[in-house]
Amino acid sequence: MSNELRLGIAGLGTVGAGVVKIVEKNSDILAKKCGRGIEIAAVSARSRSKKRGIEISGYAWEDDPVALARRKDIDVFIELIGGENGSAKASVEAALDTGKHVVTANKAMLAVHGQYLAELAEQRRLALRFEAAVAGGIPVVKVLSESMAANRVKRVLGVMNGTCNYILTRMESSGLSYEEVFAEANGLGYLEADPSLDVGGIDSGHKLALLASIAFGTRVDFESMDIEGIDRVSITDIEQARDMGFRIKLLGVAKLTGKGLEQRTQPCLVPADSPLGRLENATNMIVIEGDASGQIFLQGAGAGEGPTSSSVLSDVVELARGQRATTFGQPAASLVDAKPVCSDLSAPFYLRMTLKDEPGVLALIASVLGDAGISIDRMRQYKHEGEAAPVIMVTHRTSPAEIAKAISRIKTSGAVLEDPVSIRIEEI
Amino acid sequence: MSNELRLGIAGLGTVGAGVVKIVEKNSDILAKKCGRGIEIAAVSARSRSKKRGIEISGYAWEDDPVALARRKDIDVFIELIGGENGSAKASVEAALDTGKHVVTANKAMLAVHGQYLAELAEQRRLALRFEAAVAGGIPVVKVLSESMAANRVKRVLGVMNGTCNYILTRMESSGLSYEEVFAEANGLGYLEADPSLDVGGIDSGHKLALLASIAFGTRVDFESMDIEGIDRVSITDIEQARDMGFRIKLLGVAKLTGKGLEQRTQPCLVPADSPLGRLENATNMIVIEGDASGQIFLQGAGAGEGPTSSSVLSDVVELARGQRATTFGQPAASLVDAKPVCSDLSAPFYLRMTLKDEPGVLALIASVLGDAGISIDRMRQYKHEGEAAPVIMVTHRTSPAEIAKAISRIKTSGAVLEDPVSIRIEEI
Repeated sequence: MSNELRLGIAGLGTVGAGVVKIVEKNSDILAKKCGRGIEIAAVSARSRSKKRGIEISGYAWEDDPVALARRKDIDVFIELIGGENGSAKASVEAALDTGKHVVTANKAMLAVHGQYLAELAEQRRLALRFEAAVAGGIPVVKVLSESMAANRVKRVLGVMNGTCNYILTRMESSGLSYEEVFAEANGLGYLEADPSLDVGGIDSGHKLALLASIAFGTRVDFESMDIEGIDRVSITDIEQARDMGFRIKLLGVAKLTGKGLEQRTQPCLVPADSPLGRLENATNMIVIEGDASGQIFLQGAGAGEGPTSSSVLSDVVELARGQRATTFGQPAASLVDAKPVCSDLSAPFYLRMTLKDEPGVLALIASVLGDAGISIDRMRQYKHEGEAAPVIMVTHRTSPAEIAKAISRIKTSGAVLEDPVSIRIEEI
Repeated sequence: MSNELRLGIAGLGTVGAGVVKIVEKNSDILAKKCGRGIEIAAVSARSRSKKRGIEISGYAWEDDPVALARRKDIDVFIELIGGENGSAKASVEAALDTGKHVVTANKAMLAVHGQYLAELAEQRRLALRFEAAVAGGIPVVKVLSESMAANRVKRVLGVMNGTCNYILTRMESSGLSYEEVFAEANGLGYLEADPSLDVGGIDSGHKLALLASIAFGTRVDFESMDIEGIDRVSITDIEQARDMGFRIKLLGVAKLTGKGLEQRTQPCLVPADSPLGRLENATNMIVIEGDASGQIFLQGAGAGEGPTSSSVLSDVVELARGQRATTFGQPAASLVDAKPVCSDLSAPFYLRMTLKDEPGVLALIASVLGDAGISIDRMRQYKHEGEAAPVIMVTHRTSPAEIAKAISRIKTSGAVLEDPVSIRIEEI
């Protein structure tokens, strides 16, 4: 065919190599589905000679991704370099500047520069697409920006980081501590060079910020997000939560209320028998709640060569078919600023306290909670461990502020041997 | 705005009324997401005066949907009449004939006339879209035709009929027979006027035929599908399957192999703790297996006003944005005929037999199975009921033909008091 869509791929790590493999292996399918061929014109990576399981000698080579982005013989620039700034951003700018559509898997760059880059693309009538940046092989960007477009989205939430879900489920199945599972995962090569992006909740936060923009028509606002990672989740809480019928998941949750936009990434309890609660290992799940659609659950591999490459290529297919979607589901210039608000939406909470084994202590705790207007749904007191009496409570819905106030009083009450732990129970 | 997209809606039942409500209620969102307004120009239904919870006096009225389809003041014709032929088909033809895009929720019409109608639309450079026809609010048509387009799809399967899943889960939770739950559901108004479309597996078959076409690039071939409904599923099998760790679901399964296209709708066992096994009530779930993406699970409401209307409007949004997707993921004229094949793919099977309580009977059964090359993975013999000894077996993988042969020998062996029951275990 003479009208092949020509790709320039910058970055030949796991995903880049996967894209090359699919374009080669499924070229017949791509041609049928697109009505034209998809061809790799040129590639760029840090090392030309690294073993990747693909043969790249047939493609033009550029040492510099910016030079690749500026080549005249490509129609679409695929940015798989990563990182907020540096050559990723520079090459995307160069591609847009010289009239190429851009497909990227770079959540960090878009979480910080998404508004600017989307406006740049749309001013030039080019597409900047990022299905692979969120939840690997799960087509959540398309579903949210296209399938849900007639809905007033009420909430978007989910497990968006496979590494964290792997660590949490492995802790539960093995009974090992966070530190032990972290070391084990590191030894198996499961962690990124900078694991704090994953376990610190930042990667989830980047993804959630992008989804929130599409869901609510607001500008990406990663800066205002409340982010907490999984590094403080203890095996004790995982086990006690399980005993009460819950599992701990690192959730990203975005919700637009009358007060503003709530965006948070934090460990939460979810019912063990709910779809989110049943999610094992590195699988991701996104739940979208629309006023018309109700809850839609999307589940799949959150990372990995095949799934992420499949998502990159879904964006390429869109471009090959001549579709020119906006980056965030509506023109970037029409996105509005939302007022960021901390979560003051009431929720049930899980409370774990280590009470002193003395008469009157439970009465004291109960009265502190009662004074804060917090009522208890369920409570279990476990066998004493020396002088300590472990107590787990599940409260009725209450505000995070009241919980914080009560916990601070309990800390200074002299009734507990350790600081109490509170974890939000996300209702789903 | 002067460039509003003008809709003509034929059929104001649950879904039609739902579409009107969303267009009115979410007009601000639709305008933002589409970059132009969506406006209802004219409607048609069997009764103009029926109470529907919507006010239609502001829209032009047509008694005849064909006349509605031919109106010059509409851009998109929305067909929500239903039925394979009759005014549904006539009005869709009229709309295409007079240059309107068509959005339909009519799986029966497309399962039979999809190829013809898609070619008609594409010859005229018009779109014929049907997200709402399959699995209600679940965006499976879009995901399969767009997000999965770079994948060689290996299998599409799922629970695509909410009524059947409701009946099966209700049987399990209540212990009632199929007939009792059917009567109960009928009394509650859950069944269609012709319930055999649902419980006979035909509705699932229609949907599966459409998905198979997109997944494999083949012409819709509803005629060749193997269809079995749920009317022969007994409460005994539901309970015994559960006891062995399975649940019975009415699955639609499509798979393209070297031999041809296998399409079947039938009750199958799935592991109780799998995503399909956990599906309750009227919820639907589709699983798509791509060579790159791996398994993608999509779950949501399979029917109902809001979810189905949301899907209708997702197609409308696509058209408002100027996207002109093909009906089945590639030009209809490029779809190929697949050779239909019966399922000869091996699978584990569930076998339930009511053995005579006599010495040597189990040995006889075991030797029949052994002679057929069928090996047993697990077996349970239950407490005798009078002269009958109920036995449940789960076999290792074997071919459906071998199972059929063995069962026919067991029937005539004199070892059983009732015909044995075999149900395929779908591996997932």
